[in-house]
Amino acid sequence: MKIVSFGELMLRLTPPGYYRFRQADSFTVTFGGAEANVAVSLANFGVNSAYVTKMPDNDIALAARDKLRSFGVDTSGIVYGGERLGIYFVERGASQRPSNVIYDRKNSAVAMAMPSDFDWDKLLDGADAFFYTGITTALCDGVADICRSACETARKKGIKVICDLNYRKKLWTLDKACTVLSDMMSCTDICIGNSADACAIFGISVPAELYEKGNDLTYDGEKYVADELKKRFDLSYVALTVRRTISANVNRFYALLTDKSGLCEFSKEYTIELVDRIGGGDAFSAGIVYSLIGKKSVKESVEFAAAAGCLKQTTEGDFAVSSVAEIEALANGKSDGRVSR
Amino acid sequence: MKIVSFGELMLRLTPPGYYRFRQADSFTVTFGGAEANVAVSLANFGVNSAYVTKMPDNDIALAARDKLRSFGVDTSGIVYGGERLGIYFVERGASQRPSNVIYDRKNSAVAMAMPSDFDWDKLLDGADAFFYTGITTALCDGVADICRSACETARKKGIKVICDLNYRKKLWTLDKACTVLSDMMSCTDICIGNSADACAIFGISVPAELYEKGNDLTYDGEKYVADELKKRFDLSYVALTVRRTISANVNRFYALLTDKSGLCEFSKEYTIELVDRIGGGDAFSAGIVYSLIGKKSVKESVEFAAAAGCLKQTTEGDFAVSSVAEIEALANGKSDGRVSR
Amino acid sequence: MKIVSFGELMLRLTPPGYYRFRQADSFTVTFGGAEANVAVSLANFGVNSAYVTKMPDNDIALAARDKLRSFGVDTSGIVYGGERLGIYFVERGASQRPSNVIYDRKNSAVAMAMPSDFDWDKLLDGADAFFYTGITTALCDGVADICRSACETARKKGIKVICDLNYRKKLWTLDKACTVLSDMMSCTDICIGNSADACAIFGISVPAELYEKGNDLTYDGEKYVADELKKRFDLSYVALTVRRTISANVNRFYALLTDKSGLCEFSKEYTIELVDRIGGGDAFSAGIVYSLIGKKSVKESVEFAAAAGCLKQTTEGDFAVSSVAEIEALANGKSDGRVSR
Amino acid sequence: MKIVSFGELMLRLTPPGYYRFRQADSFTVTFGGAEANVAVSLANFGVNSAYVTKMPDNDIALAARDKLRSFGVDTSGIVYGGERLGIYFVERGASQRPSNVIYDRKNSAVAMAMPSDFDWDKLLDGADAFFYTGITTALCDGVADICRSACETARKKGIKVICDLNYRKKLWTLDKACTVLSDMMSCTDICIGNSADACAIFGISVPAELYEKGNDLTYDGEKYVADELKKRFDLSYVALTVRRTISANVNRFYALLTDKSGLCEFSKEYTIELVDRIGGGDAFSAGIVYSLIGKKSVKESVEFAAAAGCLKQTTEGDFAVSSVAEIEALANGKSDGRVSR
Amino acid sequence: MKIVSFGELMLRLTPPGYYRFRQADSFTVTFGGAEANVAVSLANFGVNSAYVTKMPDNDIALAARDKLRSFGVDTSGIVYGGERLGIYFVERGASQRPSNVIYDRKNSAVAMAMPSDFDWDKLLDGADAFFYTGITTALCDGVADICRSACETARKKGIKVICDLNYRKKLWTLDKACTVLSDMMSCTDICIGNSADACAIFGISVPAELYEKGNDLTYDGEKYVADELKKRFDLSYVALTVRRTISANVNRFYALLTDKSGLCEFSKEYTIELVDRIGGGDAFSAGIVYSLIGKKSVKESVEFAAAAGCLKQTTEGDFAVSSVAEIEALANGKSDGRVSR
Amino acid sequence: MKIVSFGELMLRLTPPGYYRFRQADSFTVTFGGAEANVAVSLANFGVNSAYVTKMPDNDIALAARDKLRSFGVDTSGIVYGGERLGIYFVERGASQRPSNVIYDRKNSAVAMAMPSDFDWDKLLDGADAFFYTGITTALCDGVADICRSACETARKKGIKVICDLNYRKKLWTLDKACTVLSDMMSCTDICIGNSADACAIFGISVPAELYEKGNDLTYDGEKYVADELKKRFDLSYVALTVRRTISANVNRFYALLTDKSGLCEFSKEYTIELVDRIGGGDAFSAGIVYSLIGKKSVKESVEFAAAAGCLKQTTEGDFAVSSVAEIEALANGKSDGRVSR
Repeated sequence: MKIVSFGELMLRLTPPGYYRFRQADSFTVTFGGAEANVAVSLANFGVNSAYVTKMPDNDIALAARDKLRSFGVDTSGIVYGGERLGIYFVERGASQRPSNVIYDRKNSAVAMAMPSDFDWDKLLDGADAFFYTGITTALCDGVADICRSACETARKKGIKVICDLNYRKKLWTLDKACTVLSDMMSCTDICIGNSADACAIFGISVPAELYEKGNDLTYDGEKYVADELKKRFDLSYVALTVRRTISANVNRFYALLTDKSGLCEFSKEYTIELVDRIGGGDAFSAGIVYSLIGKKSVKESVEFAAAAGCLKQTTEGDFAVSSVAEIEALANGKSDGRVSR
Repeated sequence: MKIVSFGELMLRLTPPGYYRFRQADSFTVTFGGAEANVAVSLANFGVNSAYVTKMPDNDIALAARDKLRSFGVDTSGIVYGGERLGIYFVERGASQRPSNVIYDRKNSAVAMAMPSDFDWDKLLDGADAFFYTGITTALCDGVADICRSACETARKKGIKVICDLNYRKKLWTLDKACTVLSDMMSCTDICIGNSADACAIFGISVPAELYEKGNDLTYDGEKYVADELKKRFDLSYVALTVRRTISANVNRFYALLTDKSGLCEFSKEYTIELVDRIGGGDAFSAGIVYSLIGKKSVKESVEFAAAAGCLKQTTEGDFAVSSVAEIEALANGKSDGRVSR
Repeated sequence: MKIVSFGELMLRLTPPGYYRFRQADSFTVTFGGAEANVAVSLANFGVNSAYVTKMPDNDIALAARDKLRSFGVDTSGIVYGGERLGIYFVERGASQRPSNVIYDRKNSAVAMAMPSDFDWDKLLDGADAFFYTGITTALCDGVADICRSACETARKKGIKVICDLNYRKKLWTLDKACTVLSDMMSCTDICIGNSADACAIFGISVPAELYEKGNDLTYDGEKYVADELKKRFDLSYVALTVRRTISANVNRFYALLTDKSGLCEFSKEYTIELVDRIGGGDAFSAGIVYSLIGKKSVKESVEFAAAAGCLKQTTEGDFAVSSVAEIEALANGKSDGRVSR
Repeated sequence: MKIVSFGELMLRLTPPGYYRFRQADSFTVTFGGAEANVAVSLANFGVNSAYVTKMPDNDIALAARDKLRSFGVDTSGIVYGGERLGIYFVERGASQRPSNVIYDRKNSAVAMAMPSDFDWDKLLDGADAFFYTGITTALCDGVADICRSACETARKKGIKVICDLNYRKKLWTLDKACTVLSDMMSCTDICIGNSADACAIFGISVPAELYEKGNDLTYDGEKYVADELKKRFDLSYVALTVRRTISANVNRFYALLTDKSGLCEFSKEYTIELVDRIGGGDAFSAGIVYSLIGKKSVKESVEFAAAAGCLKQTTEGDFAVSSVAEIEALANGKSDGRVSR
Repeated sequence: MKIVSFGELMLRLTPPGYYRFRQADSFTVTFGGAEANVAVSLANFGVNSAYVTKMPDNDIALAARDKLRSFGVDTSGIVYGGERLGIYFVERGASQRPSNVIYDRKNSAVAMAMPSDFDWDKLLDGADAFFYTGITTALCDGVADICRSACETARKKGIKVICDLNYRKKLWTLDKACTVLSDMMSCTDICIGNSADACAIFGISVPAELYEKGNDLTYDGEKYVADELKKRFDLSYVALTVRRTISANVNRFYALLTDKSGLCEFSKEYTIELVDRIGGGDAFSAGIVYSLIGKKSVKESVEFAAAAGCLKQTTEGDFAVSSVAEIEALANGKSDGRVSR
Repeated sequence: MKIVSFGELMLRLTPPGYYRFRQADSFTVTFGGAEANVAVSLANFGVNSAYVTKMPDNDIALAARDKLRSFGVDTSGIVYGGERLGIYFVERGASQRPSNVIYDRKNSAVAMAMPSDFDWDKLLDGADAFFYTGITTALCDGVADICRSACETARKKGIKVICDLNYRKKLWTLDKACTVLSDMMSCTDICIGNSADACAIFGISVPAELYEKGNDLTYDGEKYVADELKKRFDLSYVALTVRRTISANVNRFYALLTDKSGLCEFSKEYTIELVDRIGGGDAFSAGIVYSLIGKKSVKESVEFAAAAGCLKQTTEGDFAVSSVAEIEALANGKSDGRVSR
């Protein structure tokens, strides 16, 4: 199985422990980006996982590339050039204090990339699927065009196209997102997201009786959104994650997956004592891609993906490090965290 | 708005993580002291916050002074001299194991200070309020006298005087505290504390039916103590914090504020997954001072102060680093710790 | 009171915080081993605690020895020789992700030790009790024989023999364990363990009505196992710990102790927010040894031991660092983790 | 004495110890920038030191501001706005391996600043001197214009203007530097630099007999360059530092200062076992400014400044932390590094 | 250019800074092994570098594999199985105190490997050269046989065979080394080593007049040893490194390379302020392999290799991280360690 | 061989690396004190080494005690009580910047000790020698009296008394030191020190021709001072260390030892690249005590002691960790710091 992902890989700088930005004397150095996170998870699953981006030819960027390589991700499609690697700063929240993210990603190499930088026909050669997220299309019009051209090439080659909507309000407006992503959906097979983003972007309104309390949807409400997406954009599958933030330290997390036949399955619910929340959705996406491209059932797929998403949030950094065996153990019921010795 | 605080600034040495003193190979270096903590919070709130103390002219003490300056606290009133900066060692508890504090603060520069070290008329020039705590008056008789003289000067100048009772049993007896603090109350406008300390120091006995269970008071019980304090010492405002220790990791925390008219408001209750419990009361005090001197309503004041106290406990060190905007967001209901991105 | 413990002391390597093995750039260096952990706790309790093992004469092993000495453990009975100190790697779990242990302990100095390395008559001189665990007997037949010879010498000298069953499936099979440990029980006075291990090793089957849910026994179920052990092996005392794994971060923990007369007492139940789970059982064992050899009552003994086990799990490393006073404070009801200052 | 400095303050990220960028798992967080470094040294010397820049209103930038405040620098003239704080990455060299700097400073708040952001008349009020460097004028034409306007305002007010040439080849070409800096010199009183930069920028050619070996000038050669600068730009004083790089760990360092009367003095030569080479020239500049504005003699000034520059290089970070007393001790001959106890 | 290396990859545990083993509370985790070190350098040079070994399928070993992958080394030829990854502990020396190495590598997966684990015909497919060291042949007879079979396969395929003698007295005796390595030389083309090892292993005695002082040879003495090796074993090239230990912190380092025609060139001499001495010889070997297989001249080759060896010793860890450009800059004369900015 | 040492054990707090006090966010926690340092070295040498002091019964002090125990020092003579453990802060110098020490040791438990705290008859039972330093006698008159009484008891029991003069100008004046130490010398057998201190305290004036340059004495000058001390105080042996401070990073170090017969031997000279200079003299003292009490020759003794002093300075912390074998290797000529593997 070969999957190609395309997006922006960034330097992530994180104060240690619970230190706030203004208290930090050091930053932990990791790397991340929604699509790279997915590529890493797929490599961990044993998939031939190729990652495509553009990055400057300096040692900060090469360190990011090295890290991808350490997981076995195929980085031969990376284009070198441009001026800087995007950066994001993450301050870990606690209890009532939310985590905080400061982006410093403008004018990055990939955001300034040209269509001629990427030969999609070659890059997608032999692939089973192409993965991108809404973030990539939000970087700028140029990158959105490059991404669209990748999707079109993929479709022409019979390669499945998967998108995680991943709305970031600091990158673009809902209106702009609606225009671009509606267009992108027309060459996408599988859509991943969450109901709040999907409703906001595409103007889906859920009947009042499907709300649980506040803005939280019931299981039927979630299904309603998924069905609406499937219908509007003629998608093969829609997967939605549901996250309930108990506090900055504890989240509840589960997911649904529905296919064209109308089959809709929910995963188990996990109450997660968070280690690092970031990348949880990406690990879920990788689980969906791995399972669906691998022809697993809807039920197996959503359980595997939700367990992958859960486990990511119990480890540090954007990049998940769980194996298929570890994820299946959790998906199949071993969730007590007992020591193995 | 200008507030002057007076007290002892100490070097705080803390083993990393959950290491006990006997396991520690390094200590994290921070600084703290109830009144300095208040001064820092006030500077964060944009107040002209001046801090007065005496410290030796060596690099350990200057590092403490530098840290105050980094927050924008006005340190021009600090007097240099004496032999040592007080030290306290803090061992972080976990679950059933309590945190532990070892004081090594005797013979500190401020504890040995002379009345002639401080020209209160000048130091209080232009101030709206003067803040001290019971710790300052407990250091020794000489410092209590200096503090009393500051209060008297303040009253003469029409400056509000605010005291946080802050009883420390390792510093003095209840009897001594009663004598000294009763006297101090006579030149104090606003008293902050907790009901257990207040009852123990001033011999207030609460009717049995106002106890919830064990030694915990009901809401009415807390109000009873506040009213009693107001009455006894003719105070403009009394603010009490309530802390319920679930474990060394989790506390419940809320507060009340009552004014002369009899209006009494309670804040929301917070269940806090503690990062560093120390300084929570001081952040609350700063919130009370900021709100009341800033003419906020009793309800707004107690909510702001309780939110300030809560947020402090989700960050490392004695010194709070939350802005007015962050505190108001929590006071106004955003308490779910969801990532902002 | 003098207690002699015999077993394997290992180098323990632990990635910092929640890092997984594949993410670690450093390992925290500590040392541990069930019997050494017991010896350290006993030294902390003021007992004359001697530890016997064999270790190579190199600086890695000497560092382990130094650490034991720092607690006041008598290490004069350690034999130097052999090629390596056993190592175990511990990866800390979180939430749904279990902790993981990788052993690299084969061919350690003690596993290759010869009977002639230890002069038990001299080593046990003046002792009140001899402590070993099932791990020691699982290392290899040679070490099991050495251990048996120590027990026999002890019995001849009227010294109490105490065993913690400590089954490790990575070291031996249940069949082998049954053969060896049944034999060992014949020269053992006090047996410590947990019901699951005891049932699995010795083929004890508990009536279905004594199961709570899943594989968890009721209080009566636990008592049933303890009674069965007492009966089968003619033991003076049996102590069982009960652990319920809520998640990798939170465990419930309690214990029972029963004597020959049929008296059976349960400790309080603790819900522990874990700092380091490893060594909790050993701290419990030390509590049992200290209490029973010290002629405390069954009730006092089980409460002291459970509190010791609980507190260990709130501190880092295999080695407990709690004093008798701290443990008694918890056993007697102070469990709220409030700061002492 | 009041000095105003204007320039760019950046986040500096440094791998720990001798780690290279591609090996780093954390970066030490400090802040720096030539003019800010000078402002910090001046504050350490007890000068009323004001620093002017533009920075975004986010916590990364505020942390930089806080650090300046901790030294007592007056930051009230800082303008908040713009998108990002410039960043530079520093990899520490060793032996034959040079240190390496990666700049990521484009589009910083100050580089995008508008003339209307700064009211120089007010900012320079009461100042004795205005300090800038060639780096500021290299950021972009807009900032060069702002800087020129500051110089003109200063001259009108009778305030001395001091410039450190600080040529950075990664920021601009020699031709551009010649054009801009020649113009700037016309409103500058004191010029600081090194002979290699000065010759390259302004096309000064030194007679062959004034070369020592390779590209190193003799003392007379250095003096020749200084005189040439003085003459060309009608400067009151010219100060040049001389650095000989023995290895990445060891440098030789000394300086000359010459005035309009033709008096020219050289400092002692220091062989420095480097801790952090960056900021050495800025500490020297601060020493020159402090000494000359303070009316010290040419000899005293160059010795003080060279000692300040030397001591900076024995401490970590861009910001010097030496006091006047420490610098004078070294300038006056105590250079043996013996422990004081 | 494709090079295949075969050997043992180990976990390296190093106390931070200058801490001794008995003082260490943490170990820095890196990985190394002579042949892996060479493979990493070759990958850094842009060579298609494949590394062959056997390692257990656990996360400690996979972390080692991941690190190789991060450099772009082809790890597809690694065989998984066996029980443990070898470990070595390194304590960094200082001044008069030597560094110290404790090996714990017995019974490692590769030392217990079977001939059937490796299909050399396939593993060497398309390779230009095969690299091994004397360490591999010292592990045990079985591994020496496997290595010999690799050499024979290589020779049959017309692939150059390169050996670094790398004598380790803790692994075998000189007699055994002489027997095994003499045999290995018969299927080796290029031999790398140092004169002391070569003389000791093969019983080469150098005329007394070729000694400089003590046991140090003159340039002619070094050449004598190289010529002797070439003659005895009919080698195409012999390369020798020369190291003079000034102290644990400073070494002098240079090298010679001689070919069959009798051409013999010496590199420049480097006085190195050591960061991490380990792996210096391996970086040199990689430089020789890269240069000779790349058909560089003898002079260019020895200068490139010596510069590569020098630069390695200015960086942390076994694995070199220098690029061809960095090494050529040093080989071509830029050795002053001046900051690049 | 049993040696008893008496003095003050302190908490030592050291910023990491080259950070200055005002830059430090953490302190490395170690413990030290001249006499404890000697006791630790002696324990490392296999001597029965007992250390006597008074310390408070809190966990900071117990951590200090634990560390002594880890080396095998007999701490059974320590008296618990008093209020605080003395503290000293050490800032590591570099190049021209000297190290700096801030003492905060007043009112420590041992400084406030009473004669009745120590039963010297019992504490010295079975001892071969008693060791103290001038620091102990400088703490206050009470401690000097206690120390004198220990010396008298020792002399009565035929136990050798050894003193290291260790003048600390921050503790007392030269006059006071002269009075007290002259008196102490009357019951001392072996005096250790350096010539500068000895001359200053006892008013020894050395003929001008015995000065090398500045204040440095020639070899004959050093011998002159030693002879003078021997003569004045009728000492059996005098040992002097000589330190020449090249920079804060590099010292030259050697020593002399002379006996009653007039035999005077100098050790080799060491040029030391310092890791931690503190405790070098104490390691030397321990070497003298170990050698002389062990009846080694004057030449052997001074070489062993100087090598012990040298090696200490290549390791971190006050406490030396070198074995007899390591020291003898250096004393016998292996000083090149070559890796052992």
